[in-house]
Amino acid sequence: MGAARTILKARVGIVGAGPAGLMLSHLLAQAGIESIVVEKRDYHTIRTTHRAGILEHGSVRMLTEGGVSNRVLTDGHRHDGIDLRFGGASHRIDFQDLVGESVWLYPQNEVFVDLAAARERDSGDVRWAVSDTEVLDLSSDTPKIRFTDAEGAVFEVHCDILVGADGSQGICRRAIPAGQRRENFIEYPFAWFGILTEAPPSAPELIYTNSGRGFALISQRSQTIQRMYFQADPDENPDDWSEEQIWDELQRRVDGPDGFELKRGPIFEKTLLKFRSYVCEPLRYGKMFLAGDAGHTVPPTGAKGLNLALADVQVLFEAVESLYATGKTNLLDGYSERALARVWRAQNFSYWMTSMLHTRADASPFERKRALGELAGVVASRHGSAYLAEAYTGWPATTSK
Amino acid sequence: MGAARTILKARVGIVGAGPAGLMLSHLLAQAGIESIVVEKRDYHTIRTTHRAGILEHGSVRMLTEGGVSNRVLTDGHRHDGIDLRFGGASHRIDFQDLVGESVWLYPQNEVFVDLAAARERDSGDVRWAVSDTEVLDLSSDTPKIRFTDAEGAVFEVHCDILVGADGSQGICRRAIPAGQRRENFIEYPFAWFGILTEAPPSAPELIYTNSGRGFALISQRSQTIQRMYFQADPDENPDDWSEEQIWDELQRRVDGPDGFELKRGPIFEKTLLKFRSYVCEPLRYGKMFLAGDAGHTVPPTGAKGLNLALADVQVLFEAVESLYATGKTNLLDGYSERALARVWRAQNFSYWMTSMLHTRADASPFERKRALGELAGVVASRHGSAYLAEAYTGWPATTSK
Repeated sequence: MGAARTILKARVGIVGAGPAGLMLSHLLAQAGIESIVVEKRDYHTIRTTHRAGILEHGSVRMLTEGGVSNRVLTDGHRHDGIDLRFGGASHRIDFQDLVGESVWLYPQNEVFVDLAAARERDSGDVRWAVSDTEVLDLSSDTPKIRFTDAEGAVFEVHCDILVGADGSQGICRRAIPAGQRRENFIEYPFAWFGILTEAPPSAPELIYTNSGRGFALISQRSQTIQRMYFQADPDENPDDWSEEQIWDELQRRVDGPDGFELKRGPIFEKTLLKFRSYVCEPLRYGKMFLAGDAGHTVPPTGAKGLNLALADVQVLFEAVESLYATGKTNLLDGYSERALARVWRAQNFSYWMTSMLHTRADASPFERKRALGELAGVVASRHGSAYLAEAYTGWPATTSK
Repeated sequence: MGAARTILKARVGIVGAGPAGLMLSHLLAQAGIESIVVEKRDYHTIRTTHRAGILEHGSVRMLTEGGVSNRVLTDGHRHDGIDLRFGGASHRIDFQDLVGESVWLYPQNEVFVDLAAARERDSGDVRWAVSDTEVLDLSSDTPKIRFTDAEGAVFEVHCDILVGADGSQGICRRAIPAGQRRENFIEYPFAWFGILTEAPPSAPELIYTNSGRGFALISQRSQTIQRMYFQADPDENPDDWSEEQIWDELQRRVDGPDGFELKRGPIFEKTLLKFRSYVCEPLRYGKMFLAGDAGHTVPPTGAKGLNLALADVQVLFEAVESLYATGKTNLLDGYSERALARVWRAQNFSYWMTSMLHTRADASPFERKRALGELAGVVASRHGSAYLAEAYTGWPATTSK
C-alpha cells in the first residue's frame, strides 16, 4: 500500500457520527451542502451504548421539523414536569404550567438510530469503524481528515470546513495547539452509580432527590426498563454491590413520610459515571469547529449534554449555510461566541442542579442546609420554579446576529 | 450596695435596642403587652453607627402601617430596580415590572431613630447604656435579665418571655449551653472595603458589579452623601489607601465601553467589613427566643440582614400576642421553625448573590466564567430576573399555621 491514499472532496468534513455529527450532516444535506462523516466506532457499538435520555423541546423540533424522524413523538414519552424531592417529600415542577413547554424521554441511542437512518435514506456518506484518524492543515484553506477504513485503505477528506464532533475523548480538540485553546473545568468529588433494571416505572416522571445520604435520580426508559442513579464515591466498584444492596441504598434515598416505594426488578447493567464540567475556548481553530462533547462536557444532573450538542449544531449549520449562500464568514466567525453563550448558561444550570442536589462528603452543616433552603425557595417561588423549568426544558435558540 | 437589686416585672424582657428589639417592643406595646428593653450602648452611639440601607417593602409596611413613622416614605428613596453590571455593561433588574414591588433606600440608623422615637412617644421602657448584662433562669417559668444601669444600680427584669435581640456579638446566644444549639456557618475569603463620600450620586439606583478585579457596589445615601464598597482582602488596612487609590480602584471595577464614570468627592469614612454566614439552631432555648443578628448573620450582598431581623420580629410578635390572647403556646413553639424557613431562604439568596458577584482569589477560570454565565442567564431570563427581584424586594411573610 505504501503512501497510497484516496482523496475525497467535500465541503464539510465531520469527525464523529454521534448525534452532533450526524445531525449536522443531515441538515447540511437538506441545504444541498455535501459532507463526509468519519467515525471510529461501528454502528452497533454506538447503538448499544446507553447515554442521556431527556430531549428539550428544541431538540425534538430539530428531529421532527428537521425531517429526521417523528419516532420521538410516537416512541418517546412526553414529560410535563419533574419532581424535586427533599426532606422526604416530593415537589413537582410543572413545566407546562410554568413555561408552557415539555421535555421528551427518548434515549440518545434512539436519536442516533433515527439520525443514522436518515443519513442512510438520503445516501449520506458516513464511514464507520475507521482507524488512525488524524486532522491536518487546520489553519489552511483546505483542512483534511486522514483515516484508514475498515478494509485498511487510507483516505483523506479535503474540505472547506472541518467539524470536530468526536466527543470528549476525541482527537479534534487535542489537535488544537495548547497555546490556542483555553481549557476551563472543574472536577466533582462524586460519581453516579447507574443501573438499568427490568421493572415497571416507579414514578411517571423523573425524581431528583436530595437526601441525607446524597443524591438519587429515579428515571425511566420504557414501561419495562428503568434507569436509576445514586451519588457514589468516584472510587466505588459497582461489582462490589449486590442487587439488594443497590435497591436498599436507592430506597433509603427516597424514603419519606409519604411512604414512596421503588418498584424493584433484576438489575442488568451497573455503571459508574464520573463527571466533570469542561469548556474549551474558543470552539474553533483555523478552519476546524468543535461541536458537542468535543468542545464541552456538563455533569448529567441537568440533562443538558445531548441538547447542548444539538444546539451547537443548529448554530453551526446556520453559519455554514450562510457561508455558502452569501460567501460571508461573519456567522462562522461568530459561531464560537454564540455557541458558548448557551454553553456557559447550561454549564451554570448543570452546576446549580448538581450542587443543589448532591451532598459533598466534606460539606459543612451550613452548606447542607443552605442547599435545602435553596430547594425550598425554588419550589416555594413560582419565579424560581419557572427559572428552573425554563432551563430544564430548554432556552429559546440564540438568534443569528 | 452589696447584693441590693431592684426587681422589675414585665411580660417580655428584651436584650438589645437595635431595630429588632425596639420593633418588637413597639408591636407588643400596641397590643397592650408591656416589655422592658435593655441596651448596653447609648442612644448616640447606635444612632451614628452606619449599617444597612435597603428596606424590603414588608419592612417599610411594618414601619408605616405599624404606626412607627412615615419618615421612610418622605425621607427615604424608593428604588424600583438595581443594576447588575458585568462584562462592562449594566443590566437593570426592574422590580416593578417583574414583581410589582420596590425597596426603599433608608439607612438603618434612621430606622433606629424612628423606632426609638416611637418607644419614647409611647412611654416605652428602654434602658440605655447598661452594663454587666446577664440572662438567667432561661429554662424556668421566669427567665431574668440582670443588668447594672448607667448610674450603677443593679436591676433584674423578671419576665415570662425573654428575647435576645442583641446582635451577633451579644450575650444571649452565648448563654445557650453548647449542647443545646447547633451553629451553622461559612466564612468568606474576602471583605468589603466601604467608604462614605461627600459627592453627588453616581447612579440613581444601586449597581452590583462583577468585574475582573472583583465585586463593587455603587450605592447611595442621600443627594450629597454616597456609600460605595469594593471587594478586598480581609487583611487589608483601609488606612493604607489614599483617596485617589480608592477612587481609582472603584472606577476600574465599573469601567466599560459605556464610559460609566463615578462622581468623586472627599471620603470621610473608610471601613473594612468582614462577613460570614451564620445560623444558630434552634432560635430558642427554654423561655428565651433569638431574633435578628443574635440568631443569624448574612453577608451584606443581598441586603437581607435588617429585613430578616424585622421578619423574625413579626413572627415572634404574632406568637407572643397569640400566647396572651389564647393562652396557647403553639405559635411560640413554632417560632424557631417558622423564622428559620425564611432565614435559610435568605441565607441562600445572600450566598447566591455573593458567589455570583464576587471573585475568589483562588477561583479557577471555569468558576469565574460560570459566574458570568449565571449573570448572563439571570438577566436574559424574565423568570431568572423575577426570581432575583422577588428575593431582593422580599418574599411574602410566612403565614401562621
